[in-house]
Parts: sequence; C-alpha cells; structure tokens
Amino acid sequence: MHARDINGWDDLYTRIPRVETDRRLKNLKEKLLKGGFGCALILQPADLYYFTGTVQQSILFVPPEGDEFLFVVKNIERACFDSPLERIHKLKHIGAFGAAAKSFGIEISGLIGIEADVLPVSTHQLLSRMFPDAELVDASPLILEIRSVKTPLEEERLRKAGENLSSVFEEIGGYIEPGMSEFEIDAEFRRLLRRRGDHSLNRVRRWNLEFVFGCVSAGPSVAFPIAYDGPVGYSGLSAATAVGSGRRKIRKGEPIMIDTVSGWDGYMADMTRIFHIGAPDSFWLETHSFIIELNRYIEQNLAPGNPPSQIYAGVMERVREAGFSDYFMGCGENQVKFFGHGIGLELDEPPVFAKRFDIPLAEGNCVAIEPKIIFPDRGGVGLENTYLITADGFEKLTRMDEEIHIL
Amino acid sequence: MHARDINGWDDLYTRIPRVETDRRLKNLKEKLLKGGFGCALILQPADLYYFTGTVQQSILFVPPEGDEFLFVVKNIERACFDSPLERIHKLKHIGAFGAAAKSFGIEISGLIGIEADVLPVSTHQLLSRMFPDAELVDASPLILEIRSVKTPLEEERLRKAGENLSSVFEEIGGYIEPGMSEFEIDAEFRRLLRRRGDHSLNRVRRWNLEFVFGCVSAGPSVAFPIAYDGPVGYSGLSAATAVGSGRRKIRKGEPIMIDTVSGWDGYMADMTRIFHIGAPDSFWLETHSFIIELNRYIEQNLAPGNPPSQIYAGVMERVREAGFSDYFMGCGENQVKFFGHGIGLELDEPPVFAKRFDIPLAEGNCVAIEPKIIFPDRGGVGLENTYLITADGFEKLTRMDEEIHIL
Repeated sequence: MHARDINGWDDLYTRIPRVETDRRLKNLKEKLLKGGFGCALILQPADLYYFTGTVQQSILFVPPEGDEFLFVVKNIERACFDSPLERIHKLKHIGAFGAAAKSFGIEISGLIGIEADVLPVSTHQLLSRMFPDAELVDASPLILEIRSVKTPLEEERLRKAGENLSSVFEEIGGYIEPGMSEFEIDAEFRRLLRRRGDHSLNRVRRWNLEFVFGCVSAGPSVAFPIAYDGPVGYSGLSAATAVGSGRRKIRKGEPIMIDTVSGWDGYMADMTRIFHIGAPDSFWLETHSFIIELNRYIEQNLAPGNPPSQIYAGVMERVREAGFSDYFMGCGENQVKFFGHGIGLELDEPPVFAKRFDIPLAEGNCVAIEPKIIFPDRGGVGLENTYLITADGFEKLTRMDEEIHIL
Repeated sequence: MHARDINGWDDLYTRIPRVETDRRLKNLKEKLLKGGFGCALILQPADLYYFTGTVQQSILFVPPEGDEFLFVVKNIERACFDSPLERIHKLKHIGAFGAAAKSFGIEISGLIGIEADVLPVSTHQLLSRMFPDAELVDASPLILEIRSVKTPLEEERLRKAGENLSSVFEEIGGYIEPGMSEFEIDAEFRRLLRRRGDHSLNRVRRWNLEFVFGCVSAGPSVAFPIAYDGPVGYSGLSAATAVGSGRRKIRKGEPIMIDTVSGWDGYMADMTRIFHIGAPDSFWLETHSFIIELNRYIEQNLAPGNPPSQIYAGVMERVREAGFSDYFMGCGENQVKFFGHGIGLELDEPPVFAKRFDIPLAEGNCVAIEPKIIFPDRGGVGLENTYLITADGFEKLTRMDEEIHIL
C-alpha cells in the first residue's frame, strides 16, 4: 500500500523525501551491524519521524542488512501519505506484531535494540513475551548519535526555526509594559510565534521532564526552585504546573529573561535575551558583559574537532576566575553542570557541554549555548543562541543584538 | 525539612492543603492493603502531584499502613514549598533510593505497585535490580480509579477551567475571518486562553499520544487521517507534527470546528463548538440538530448509577437509526469507539463512554462528552462539553450556545 497524495494537500504540508530516510536508515543499519544487533524496533514518535517521515502509532523494524518494515496501528492512510518508505503494513494492535512479522518472513532474534530510556514497562513486557528467546537492549544511544549529525534538509528547518524565533524576539519588546504578569507577556510571545507557523509541538526526550514553552521569568523568578534540568527558575502558575511563566508582575530595574524555543517542521531553535525597563544598573551591565565575553570565548571554540568537555573546562575556569562559580548556570539546587546542549527534533539531544562529553564536535551538530548567571532573590542575566557546527566553525541561527535590551 | 514559604509568593501561587493529600493517600493505602501490596512507588508527574502536591523528580513511597515518604532528586526546596507532606527527603539520584529507604527503616518487599503504563524500561530495570526479591506490578489502574472521583477542591479548579475556556469560545468569533489559516485562528485562541491564566501544561497519560492543544480544524481538515485517538482529524503543519491546526485557509460554507482544552492549576476542561462563515446549508443544520438531540439524550443519562457502556449502547442505537454509523466519531481510520472520556489532571482518564466500561458513573466523576459526525472530504459538526457528575445528575462546566455559530 502506498499513496502519497490526499486531495492536493501538498502545498500546505511538508514531508521528507526518500533520500533522507534512505540515508538515515543506512546509518542505523551500519551501527546495528557493528553492534551485533539482530534488529531494532523503534516506537517513539521523534525517532519514528526521523527514520520514516511519519509519527503514527507504529513499530519500525530495522535489520542490520535487508529491508525495513513499518507496521502501523494507527493511521496507515496518514503513514502512507507522510512516509516515503515502501513497506508499510497495517497492524491491529502492538500485541499482533509477532505474528505480523512472521507472516512477512521477518526473523526477530538475538539482540533487539529498543528505546529503553523512553519505552514504557508495559510495552516492553509485551515485546519480551512476544520474543522470549531474544534479548532486548537499549539502542537509544546509537539512534541519538546518528540524529546528532544533521542533514542539509534538517539544517534548513533549523535555520527557519531560528529565523522565526529571532523575529519574535525582535518584536516582543513592543508588548512589554511594567505591571504585566510574566504569563501575560508569554501569551503575546506565543501568539507571535504561532502566527509565524511555529509547529507548537516541542519534544523533550527524557521521561517526566515537563516543560511549558514560551517562558518569561523576571527578577527573583529566575532563581525560583524548579524540577526542570535547566538553569532558569520559574514559578509557574501553581504547584500543579511548576514550570513556565508565573503570575508575578514585572517591575522596573530588574532583568526580564525570555528563554524559549520555537520549532519549524519538527526542528527547534532555542534562544534567550534579556530585557529591562529603564536603564540597567552597573551591576547588571557588568555581569552581562562578562556573559558576552564568555560567549565569545565559547564561539571561538565552536568548531569540529573540539570536545565539548574541553570547552566546558575552559568556561568553568573563566567563571571561577571571575568569582561567579555559585551563580553560573543557576543558583542553589537549580544549578546545572552544563552550559549548552544539542537540539533538533528534541530539546535534550547530544552533545552536551559538560564533563565527560569527550567526543569532538562534528560538522552537522546543532547546539544551543546558554551561559547564564543567576543570583538568589535578585535575578539574573544571560544569553542563548542556537548554532550549526560547520566545516570550519559555526553558523549562528538566532540573530538579535546580545546586549541587555532597554525598553 | 519543611518550609512552606518563599518570600511571600503565597498570593501568586496555588498549592493544595494537607487535608487533600491525607484523603488521597488514605484512599491509595486502602487499595494497596486490599490488593496485598507491600507498597507503591510513584514517579509520574500527574500522580506525584495528586498524592504529594508537587511535581519534582522524585519517588513517592506509599505503604498500605504507616507513613508515606517523598524522596526528591530535584528540587527539594520546591518540594517543601509545594507539598504539605511531612516526610520529604533528598535523594542524590534514583539509583540511591534503595539505600535511602533502608536508612529510614523502610522495608520494600512483596508486591510493589508501579506505574507500568508510563514508567520507562530503564527506570524499571533500575528498580528491579534494587529490589531483586520483590515483584513489580502495575498499580496504575488503582491510582486512576482513585483519581476518577474528584474532591471538592478539584471540582473548583475544573469549574474555573470550564469558565475560562467558555469565555474564550465566546470571544474567538470576533477574530475569525475568511482566508485565515487554521493555525492563525489557533494563535489568537491560545493568546486569549493564556491571558486568562490557562496553565499551558496539558497532560496526556498515554505514552506517545502526542497532541497540539488549541485546535482549529475546518472543512475537509476534520477528516484528515490522524494518529491521535480522537474523532477529529487534523493536518498539522507538517508530517513532523501531524496533529493540530494546519495551513489550510478557512472558507465560507464549511463548518469550522474548534475543539480544545484549557487548564487551571492542573485541571482541564474540554470543549467543542462549530463556527460557520455565513448561513450554513440545511445539510449541516440538520446534522448538527441530530447532535444536539443526541447530546440531550446523553445528558438525560448522566447521573450516578448509570454505566457508561449502557449509555454508549443507547447512543449507538440512535446513531444507527439515523444512518450516521459510518460518520459518528470520525470517519475511516479516524473513527473511534467512544463518545466521551474522563478528564482531570490528564486528558485520557477513566471512565470512557464505550463498550466494557460497566462500572456505573459516580458522584465526583468529571467527563467530557463529545458527539461528533464527520464526513470524508466535506467536514463535520459536533459538540463537546465537560460535566461534573453530581448526586442527582450533572453540573455542566462549559457554557455557550450549542447551535452552529454564524460569523
């Protein structure tokens, strides 16, 4: 079954071509062969989209050699519209996968690669019972390694995400007034983003890492204790949704941090700028100047061949020398031990700019670099930009003056 | 450690009182005792919030008798601010839980209830290795059964969610113009919702059930094939985010379906209304009249003691008699076999109005009822409202005229 047309939706809708899935699947098959896998079974939406071009409820079977098969519980019509894959078949339910595979002569044995970091226990148990002689092991690291090097098509989408996000940052200042609540500014920001075609489905890989996208956090809010693994604190509106902009009203004389992602056709850019009502005092100007200098140092090192862990060590040395160790990348329990992260279909991709990330940067990596300094009770300043690593350095996808923006 | 105050944030932020967590934990302990469990270990954000009042990265230990303990990886300061629980302790990482439990004299053995429908394999394996003599079994059904009966505090929040959502539905008509794309209307809808304090973190329990909230789908878009288990089709903007409003421009003469949820302090209301530019033709008027009649029939049966499966059977009989069997609750592969679902902290809660849901409705259930009829290529009409089940019937939380709204 295959039908890539539904009533002329082509102009309204973006899909990926066969050359993309071929290339991506080839990379996976090579890694499966090298790792001694019998096959990989992929069920998670971002991974499914990456390898098939569609995010249906389905199982993708990928062998180290030979043909991949996509078995779709729901929706096969959409799967055939979205995906350039040839072998797409209907599955009644996930529990019927074993029998369906057999009927196509697919052998599932030996080491089976699964997405152990995200697959729920109940689905895992179903697969374990289905293939009692096989051994289900984690293949997520292989998948994420492949995904960390972007193709030119992915780079195009990341560029577009960066452009959209930058243009909203340029415009949001006109909507900010003293006395507005953080979440009211957030409402305007989201509207502007969505009107530009923001995809509105920002994916985070890690289970239970909840996030509210489009985030304004001002003054002391940026030090508010949070569960999220990012440097910026948020009160949220209540204990039920303890992330994202809060009800606190912004005031003159405090830095307003806007840190948010925007996505285009699945791919996200991440950006932070500081706004300030009236002229900031010298304390904030000097602290933010240090951030700008630090960011320049990081940019000088953003190039293929440099290990993120080495850049991290250099940054931490400069932070220590400047006396900001207790405030760099958050304060108190909020403090995180990285200043940048990979980004693409998910917000929390490799590489991470932290200790032990020793694999050198490579052309095609996409990273968000976010040096920030946050003081308890007072507030914080910082920057975030998204970069593509190129053959000889980087391409910056987020564009706006990096000084504190005076409103 | 306990400190329920951080610099006077009390007025800006909502938390739940001890009486709520006591009541909820008592219900869980009773069920654990009855089911022969040694304890339950809870890690999922919505469940954690329900039983503790905070959504940190943590493990909640609940025994059938005796004291519960919350072990927090991140963020203990926030946990103590949010949660009325007494026994809140720091944990270095999830892997340290076994030793931490031991140090507090907590015995973990026998049947251990876990959230098998959502907990990832890797966390499950960690717990299995930690407690090799225990048996980890699914306790999610027990938890969801407790959560399906709302407390008065939860009802208050659901009411507020319904009020906000209704007021935005009343206002959105003024923003809709021919030639706008679906996602552009969606952008306005979200801004209006967020400005009213919408919580912006709409939770769905089921793994990989991705959704874009705030959804406009007009004309043929409502029949567009989707992976989501709802009746309404959406094209989304691309194959990467294949849900939510699309790029298609709305036209005169087609029903514009707006189906969206809104949340207040964690609790969601769900609502659908139909808009139409110019006078709808008799086909749509008659089809929608049938929906309104059908909804009246459902409302007559919305009361404690009536099993959802029985109401479902009555509805399906009426649908068959009217000749709408192929179009009720979606068409083609989109068609779903329910017309209503429980709602609260998550969008996909029990009870479901479908076959085999034979447990009678009870006072305190909160349900979204969404009869819809959708034709391929043409479009569809329908309604959705959120109801609390009361002692003698229901309280409707979503309020707006149910006819087609002519713009």
